[in-house]
Formats: sequence, structure tokens, C-alpha cells
Amino acid sequence: MKINLEIDERIDDLEYKGLKIIQNKNWFCFGIDSVLLSDYAKEIKNNSTVLDLGTGTGIISILLSKKINAKKIIGIEIQKEVAKMAEKSVKLNELKNVEILNEDIKNLKKIFEKNSIDAIVTNPPYIEKNNGFKSENKNKLISRHEIKCNIENLIEISSSLLKDKGEFYMVHRPDRLIDIIYYLRKNKIEPKKIKFVYSNKNKECNLILIKAVKNAGKFLKIEKPLYVYDNDGQYTEEILKIYNKNKE
Amino acid sequence: MKINLEIDERIDDLEYKGLKIIQNKNWFCFGIDSVLLSDYAKEIKNNSTVLDLGTGTGIISILLSKKINAKKIIGIEIQKEVAKMAEKSVKLNELKNVEILNEDIKNLKKIFEKNSIDAIVTNPPYIEKNNGFKSENKNKLISRHEIKCNIENLIEISSSLLKDKGEFYMVHRPDRLIDIIYYLRKNKIEPKKIKFVYSNKNKECNLILIKAVKNAGKFLKIEKPLYVYDNDGQYTEEILKIYNKNKE
Repeated sequence: MKINLEIDERIDDLEYKGLKIIQNKNWFCFGIDSVLLSDYAKEIKNNSTVLDLGTGTGIISILLSKKINAKKIIGIEIQKEVAKMAEKSVKLNELKNVEILNEDIKNLKKIFEKNSIDAIVTNPPYIEKNNGFKSENKNKLISRHEIKCNIENLIEISSSLLKDKGEFYMVHRPDRLIDIIYYLRKNKIEPKKIKFVYSNKNKECNLILIKAVKNAGKFLKIEKPLYVYDNDGQYTEEILKIYNKNKE
Repeated sequence: MKINLEIDERIDDLEYKGLKIIQNKNWFCFGIDSVLLSDYAKEIKNNSTVLDLGTGTGIISILLSKKINAKKIIGIEIQKEVAKMAEKSVKLNELKNVEILNEDIKNLKKIFEKNSIDAIVTNPPYIEKNNGFKSENKNKLISRHEIKCNIENLIEISSSLLKDKGEFYMVHRPDRLIDIIYYLRKNKIEPKKIKFVYSNKNKECNLILIKAVKNAGKFLKIEKPLYVYDNDGQYTEEILKIYNKNKE
């Protein structure tokens, strides 16, 4: 597979089932949150049509393609140059059921039919529009701040696109949990389980993983916490398993 | 202090600063949830007027009276015979700033002025009205099921009674987290921190502790988890500290 890299682009080995990804050192590079979400979403049913809202490098769509048997995974990315790079990663990995769509999430209701999507996964920008440090380049700004789309928009659109009992998987920061839960309930996507991720046993939570289901009944399960590092600063067994680095 | 006990009533030693409590063996007896909530609420400011909604045996009001310097703590209990027993416990402990009010929470807006309460603590019934096993006696039924008042009522009333920036502390089960967060946000009591309680490291969460503040800005902190038992089935250090059984 011949792929032309732009200046500042590099190919990283995902060390997971032979997958690779192209990243641009000046842009937003993926983190552990995307890896955790793609693993959290691995219970998506066979033959599903999945949207990955705000795919960025394409990381979640690419990892997910080897974790589930999807009919199609469509990564949506608003930034043209980022979408182009994600598309090259899809080609590089020869993934037949993944496609990248350079589109604004706000236009998706015109592109996909109402109640047509089986599952949505999303690692959206974490920071509210008017919060935080913003002297970043435009690309990082859009990836990290709610410039183009906020939680409320994202959830409202997801609710419209998902089938009855369609599944919604999100990774986000704990400080936004109230916004997320409030808008999910309001838009009839009921949270069914949440996993809180802690850097280690002595730290406050720094990431949340949520699974919610459209039109589901009320009952939330809070799973046992996920610790990233053990007391010795090494990855925990659970993390090694997600990274496929133990002998399972 | 001479206290007349009814048949089936007994005095239990709380093993905390000399406190005792009267319980009736046929009725709802307090659990670790009340102990945890009274400790979680210990940051209530000096000279506060505090309501304890659904006080039952009076356990939270009684423990809290030795953890904070309240102006007054008023335990509200709808069941006449339970309120009477709680009142005896208050007398037994000679607590000058605790009082028990035999009243329906739904009448509190007629009794207290709007925006007049500094803090509310509550360990309400956990189970929705039409859910769960109900062949219990009437007393246990009212203590455990949302017969007289549900989360929505409780939060709406709390919002009306609390001062601007008044504090709301609740213990509940994780499966109701979505209801709690939804109604708190809707009623402008913003959740500020949540602590998830797990029986041990291998179990799902079984209790949640929430602090929310009326009219506060958005930003939630998810604290490090609280484990009740360690790997050997013994109380953890954190629990022993709450029970005041270590040498702090």
C-alpha cells in the first residue's frame, strides 16, 4: 500500500492487530481516551452501522473495526485536512468497512435518515467554548474546544439519528458529567452504564466512559473503577489487556 | 436521662463521641449509608440551619450534630411513631441544637420560608414506587420505597427552601444517579462533587454520595472511590476513620 505522507505527518504503529495510524505532529494526536472508548464500545452488535462523531485522526473508527463486526463504520470529521489524513489511515490499513466523511455534525440529519443508525461512538471536544486556554493553533482548538458543536447539539443529533434501542458510547471528562447526563435524559437516550477512569488509586477521576441506549428504561450500573497505573507507576492488568499486551 | 422505651425498642451505642440511638427491631434500622452521609456533610458551615429530610431514627441529624457546629438541625419525619422515637434519641443524647419535626416533606414550603435554609441532608427511600419487593410492614415500606415522596418532589422542594449557594447532600443508590442529576440540574442545584462507594475492589458501585449547591456554576469533581472493605474483608482505613475507630 503506497501512501503519500505530507510534511509533519508520520505513521505510528498502534500495536494492535497490525493497525497503523497517520498523525500530524502539529495537530491533535490521539490519547488513551480514544483507546478506552473503542474498547468500551466493543459490545456493539454484529452487522451494525456505526457513526464516529468527530473522528479526528480516525483512531476510534480504525480500532473499532478490529473489535466489532460492523457492517459499516463512518467517521465524521469537520476539518478537511484532518479528514484527508484519517482517510489515508483507513487506506493504509485496508479497512473495507470504514469510511471517513468530511462533514459538519450539524448537517448529519440531512445526510442520514432519522432512526437509521445502530450505534454512535464519540470522543468530542472536552472544553466549553468560553473556557480554558485558547492560544493553540486552529486545528487543536477545534479538536479540544466546543467551537463547532457542543454536548447539547451532539446528543440531540445523535438521538435523532439512532434507531430505537440504538447505542451511544462516549468518553469525556468528569467535570462535564452533569451536562452529559442532563442532555441524554432530555433527549431520551438513557445512560445504562458508566465507568470512571482514574490515573491511579490516589487521584480523582479524570475520564468517564458512558453507554446509553435510546428509549431504554431507567437503571444505571456504575461499573468498578478503571485504574490506568498501579502503585508502581506501571500500566494495570486491565489497561494492558485493552492494549492487547498480555497473553490472553 | 430517663427515657421510656417501648416494647421492641432498644438503645444502640453509636461508638461515636458518646452518642446513642434508639431503634425498633421491627422497623427500618440505619445502615452505613447514613453514617457515610453524615460524614460527607461535615463541611457544612458553622452556624447553619440544616434540614434532614426523612430522618427516620434521627441517625443523620444526631451524628451530624457532633460533626458540625450547626445553629439548628431539624430532622423531618413523616411517620408519627418513628418521629417520636427519634425525638427520644435526641433527648437521650441531650442535643440542644437538634429537633425532630413530624411532618410531610410536601408541607415544608408552608412551614419554612423560601430561600431560608443553609443546608439540606437526605437519605431518602431508594426504590421507585412501583418497583421491587413490597411485602414488608408499612413502616419499612415507607422508609424504603418512594411512597410519600420521590426524588423529583424532594429536589424541587429542596431548591425552594435552600438559600442562594445553599448546600444539598444526598446518599442514594447508583441506579438512580440519572434521576438525581437530571432533577438537580433542572431545579438549579448544581452537583459539585460525587463520591462513589464500592463494597470492595471487585464489586460494582453500590452507593453514591453527592454534594450539590444551589445556583452554583458548572464543574463537577468525581472524588477517589471509597471502598468499604479491603481484600481481607476488613474495614478499610477510610471507613475506620469515618467510624472514628482509628487513632486520628
